[in-house]
Amino acid sequence: MIFSDNISGVKPSAIREIFKVLGDPTIISLAGGNPDPTTFPADKMATVAEELFAKNPSGSLQYGVTEGYAPLREQLANRMEQRFGIKREGNTTLVLTGGQQGIDLTTKVLCNPGDTVICEEPSFIGALNCFRTYGAKLRGIPMEDDGLNVEALETALKEEKRAKLLYLIPTFQNPMGVTMSLEKRKQVYALAVKYGITILEDNPYGELRFSGEEIPTIKSFDTEGIVVYCGSFSKILSPGIRIGFVSAPDEIAQKLVVAKQVTDVHTNIFFQMLVSGFLEKYDLDEHIESIRKLYKSKCECITNALDKYIPAEKFWRSSPEGGIFIYCRFFGEDAGVLSKKLVERKVAVVPGTAFNTDENAKTEYVRLNYSMPSYENIERGVKIIGEYLNGTN
Amino acid sequence: MIFSDNISGVKPSAIREIFKVLGDPTIISLAGGNPDPTTFPADKMATVAEELFAKNPSGSLQYGVTEGYAPLREQLANRMEQRFGIKREGNTTLVLTGGQQGIDLTTKVLCNPGDTVICEEPSFIGALNCFRTYGAKLRGIPMEDDGLNVEALETALKEEKRAKLLYLIPTFQNPMGVTMSLEKRKQVYALAVKYGITILEDNPYGELRFSGEEIPTIKSFDTEGIVVYCGSFSKILSPGIRIGFVSAPDEIAQKLVVAKQVTDVHTNIFFQMLVSGFLEKYDLDEHIESIRKLYKSKCECITNALDKYIPAEKFWRSSPEGGIFIYCRFFGEDAGVLSKKLVERKVAVVPGTAFNTDENAKTEYVRLNYSMPSYENIERGVKIIGEYLNGTN
Repeated sequence: MIFSDNISGVKPSAIREIFKVLGDPTIISLAGGNPDPTTFPADKMATVAEELFAKNPSGSLQYGVTEGYAPLREQLANRMEQRFGIKREGNTTLVLTGGQQGIDLTTKVLCNPGDTVICEEPSFIGALNCFRTYGAKLRGIPMEDDGLNVEALETALKEEKRAKLLYLIPTFQNPMGVTMSLEKRKQVYALAVKYGITILEDNPYGELRFSGEEIPTIKSFDTEGIVVYCGSFSKILSPGIRIGFVSAPDEIAQKLVVAKQVTDVHTNIFFQMLVSGFLEKYDLDEHIESIRKLYKSKCECITNALDKYIPAEKFWRSSPEGGIFIYCRFFGEDAGVLSKKLVERKVAVVPGTAFNTDENAKTEYVRLNYSMPSYENIERGVKIIGEYLNGTN
Repeated sequence: MIFSDNISGVKPSAIREIFKVLGDPTIISLAGGNPDPTTFPADKMATVAEELFAKNPSGSLQYGVTEGYAPLREQLANRMEQRFGIKREGNTTLVLTGGQQGIDLTTKVLCNPGDTVICEEPSFIGALNCFRTYGAKLRGIPMEDDGLNVEALETALKEEKRAKLLYLIPTFQNPMGVTMSLEKRKQVYALAVKYGITILEDNPYGELRFSGEEIPTIKSFDTEGIVVYCGSFSKILSPGIRIGFVSAPDEIAQKLVVAKQVTDVHTNIFFQMLVSGFLEKYDLDEHIESIRKLYKSKCECITNALDKYIPAEKFWRSSPEGGIFIYCRFFGEDAGVLSKKLVERKVAVVPGTAFNTDENAKTEYVRLNYSMPSYENIERGVKIIGEYLNGTN
């Protein structure tokens, strides 16, 4: 069988191999990106679901429109305006099948094979692989503690003649957990305007700040209509329901609708209505506040464990102010070898290679997740990492 | 804004304009493709949903695997084998976000821009537009009462040097409502093998036979592993939940998984589990039997009305043995003009132009749907069509 050029070049994700071992219940996984399931408001969702089945089965189970359930779109536009300063005028809100679909459709409507997508390095593997399936060339910009290196971005914008899309996770970045400063956000936006590139601002973790000050989204200063903003309910309600959304400049949004229509027609309407009912009936902010408290405490648990079990001279770690990931560099360790050695010791982590534009380049970084594992497993898992690094196991 | 070459060429669907008027409650719509909402088993679905929320919230709301919920995949593979003779060996069953995603992902993994997709003419507009978004060239094969013209198919296979995909809806075809004979299915399969083309067999209506004899699927004689079979729960449970599936040769299925991973990660896991629970707890065949009875009766209603209100010499109509559509040719009428005149008279139909590979070619055909409108509206709508054709309104 001869496959399309775009798909032929894409290998199954490098971390699939790691995720395969996660079926083993004796493995402590710090590898995933799952929210803590105790944060799913199942009882409240069940209440809204019951009402939908009873009172509006013909609406909640019938075909819907591609753009999304109108009342939910309105609620989302209001929330994005109030919480994230995203203007309604000139932008269209669409409900999508998870945040991933926002990445997919934006790439589909903007990128030809051979176009360049500029991204943070490291970045979210699901986005990088998506860009690869459209034949895009990836150009990574080195990350710093306060976001990407702006000079390197400008160099890239000068050099890449076919740069089409700038993919960013400015807040609690995956995999690093770091946040781009306001100053850099403004510089990045100005460069995007100057060089005529569209920004895809991916913000799945933006509601999960547990320390420090809120920083405005890049989309909030998008006077030129060049930013597609992508959000999701995956980390604040449930990832399994696959409800995400975009706020996109009207002209881009029209094309996203054309692309979505032939991809999945529309997003599961029952859960669009359920989320809408949830937002109307319950206090989402109160719910999010409880998630923030939990993740603050779990983040403290993992940073304390890292600092306790691993000598300071052996590693560097990021200092997340929110989100679900922390990034570590273990000096002198090859992350690929390290992650294999740790799996043998029943701890799963993701080597940084997975998040790089060149998957074959060696790195000393690994990503750890603290939202999903229990406090006990965080402590035990990090202890095992420390014992390996200290040569005591 | 400069969009990708593939998307730039795609116009918003011609029938979107018609669907816009459907918000008007005084319009009788024979234009849609919706199932009758009274067929949604909402009470039973509610029972399964309640159990899921109560007993397995952390499973039903958490991230799932891209391939789909394992027990549902198993149930689907069994059902496809028993009902449709589709062998499990050599094939992989995947759960998808509606049947449309099967069309989308299959095209993505197989077709380069400039490749030809051969299809029935007329065919499903959602598929044709999907092929267009991958830059595919469309080649239509004229339809007859027992499926496409096989000689024209062989000519096309000889002429189209880059023919990559053969898209077929062999059973209760959209828009015509006709079914491909067993003899033609075998001929078409043999030609596909001979010319090395992959068949995409789309079967969203296959469970809805209300007269005549069952005919085996093309996939049931796929000894060479060249058929991707696409099914859906849209017409037998609910379209709003967006649960479809494919049975694809293993090698193709692997690539479909790679493509799906970066498109929407996985299909709504809650409804995958709900459908699985429904299949376990209730008798789907009994439920389908009730839908068949209803659609048989509604189909009789529309054929009786057509034969009653429109003189035989003025039109031809297909004779569906299942499904939800009937196709009519009104001699001497331009379908585009006719559909506009009918909207003025508060009846919506879809002109055949929408289903042709060349959307600008004039046609005398229109598609009528009988699953969604009430008996009363079917009668009233067809009466109005008759009055217009007879010049009495």
